[in-house]
Amino acid sequence: MVLFLVGVGLNNEKDLTLRGLELIEKADKVYLESYTSILSPGASIINLLKEKKLIEADRKTIEENCDGIIAEAKEKNIVLLVVGDPFCATTHSDLVLRSYEQGVKVEVVHNASIISAIGCTGLQVYRFGETVSIPFFEDNWRPKSFYDKIKSNLERGLHTLCLLDIKVKEQTIENMMKNRPIFEPPRFMTINQAISQILAIKEEDNSSLLSQDSLGFGVARVGSEDQLIVSGTLKELIHTEFGGPLHSLVICHPDLHLVERRFFEINKKK
Amino acid sequence: MVLFLVGVGLNNEKDLTLRGLELIEKADKVYLESYTSILSPGASIINLLKEKKLIEADRKTIEENCDGIIAEAKEKNIVLLVVGDPFCATTHSDLVLRSYEQGVKVEVVHNASIISAIGCTGLQVYRFGETVSIPFFEDNWRPKSFYDKIKSNLERGLHTLCLLDIKVKEQTIENMMKNRPIFEPPRFMTINQAISQILAIKEEDNSSLLSQDSLGFGVARVGSEDQLIVSGTLKELIHTEFGGPLHSLVICHPDLHLVERRFFEINKKK
Repeated sequence: MVLFLVGVGLNNEKDLTLRGLELIEKADKVYLESYTSILSPGASIINLLKEKKLIEADRKTIEENCDGIIAEAKEKNIVLLVVGDPFCATTHSDLVLRSYEQGVKVEVVHNASIISAIGCTGLQVYRFGETVSIPFFEDNWRPKSFYDKIKSNLERGLHTLCLLDIKVKEQTIENMMKNRPIFEPPRFMTINQAISQILAIKEEDNSSLLSQDSLGFGVARVGSEDQLIVSGTLKELIHTEFGGPLHSLVICHPDLHLVERRFFEINKKK
Repeated sequence: MVLFLVGVGLNNEKDLTLRGLELIEKADKVYLESYTSILSPGASIINLLKEKKLIEADRKTIEENCDGIIAEAKEKNIVLLVVGDPFCATTHSDLVLRSYEQGVKVEVVHNASIISAIGCTGLQVYRFGETVSIPFFEDNWRPKSFYDKIKSNLERGLHTLCLLDIKVKEQTIENMMKNRPIFEPPRFMTINQAISQILAIKEEDNSSLLSQDSLGFGVARVGSEDQLIVSGTLKELIHTEFGGPLHSLVICHPDLHLVERRFFEINKKK
């Protein structure tokens, strides 16, 4: 039997591919990565699957139950639905690897991912350097490696796609201590929070590469009917309201190509 | 009315999304980018569309007839089917831009692209630097900018995705002179050719960053049922037979992470 990793794309059940849908229909059991619940009409995928034995699982659960899922896939056809493209998270790479090692066949259904869909800004996808993830700062934890990577991309004339943190299934310390399975509502980092974290690090950095006058694109709900793309300086974007999740941010190299420049002008905050 | 840019994904008609299929069914006219004919079962998309007024067009035709397509989209719902994700080619960015400028609404259906699907190698997609395109060398034209970019990524600890050249609708000089609309069969660069071009440039370069001992992944027909992924040194991969199109090549930073290393070992040429 086979373990199918099926990408569900960026928004809703209509982003499934025909092959993905076919596999779900034939599957013996379907796992749904709980990140999907944060997607615009998350419930729609669940409706689609209502006749299936559907298990919603966060990445941690998938990681911890890795061997269980692989054992099932020896007997049954198992589908794991993953937001975007299945290989864009390390968790799933590890699952695939262990399956190989245990002789379980794995098939992947690729789908749209923000990594390539970010081309919707009109910036050339080949002109992006390393992608960075911006984590929520906490009182005693303010990593700045993403900032250094953005600067390093700028030095090489490249744009940077910044993926913004998402927290699902968080527990308060009290609930954790008392072992109560009560979880906080999912939260996602807004473009505004991401920029404010970047500018907070900037305060301790004298380089002129990155500042509140740097150019960027804020993108929200890419690929959905109410997607929003706004270009501007970071100082402008920090005051722009982007609405619901998911948000991503691009820091542009200031020397935009001709076509890129025209996209930038068209998407400017009105 | 609307100009819909619909990504068709990496392989065949089953890679269309439900939303993409719905738009095709409702469209007044459908343009099919002729690159699709190079995809594994290219004909299958054409079958799917047999009742539609379907126009196969290469990128040059789309570029030259840009204003014609936009004029149509003022009156009708037009779908342009694009291999992979619609924004991964500059041609389409320009089409979108001109549509905006002429007040024509554009909607995009994103899909899988090699830019993110390359995660199937097990390499971390966030650890890729700038993507490069390797063009067919000609007698008097041997650009080496892709080589410098690969080295620059290596210096920063990053992998490089190399997209390999495709030629469609080429004419012989004779046919061109006599204005005969006879085109050569499409050709695509193999992984073997790409490596041989890289090593040809290497001969004039003393740097130790890149050599025939560099590590790479050759990938063919990603996402299809007969996809092939092989890892090895460039010296090994240059002698590997990868079969039909499309091919892509990854040059790895030699310092692979733990999970990456395991994928490399598993995919090694037997």
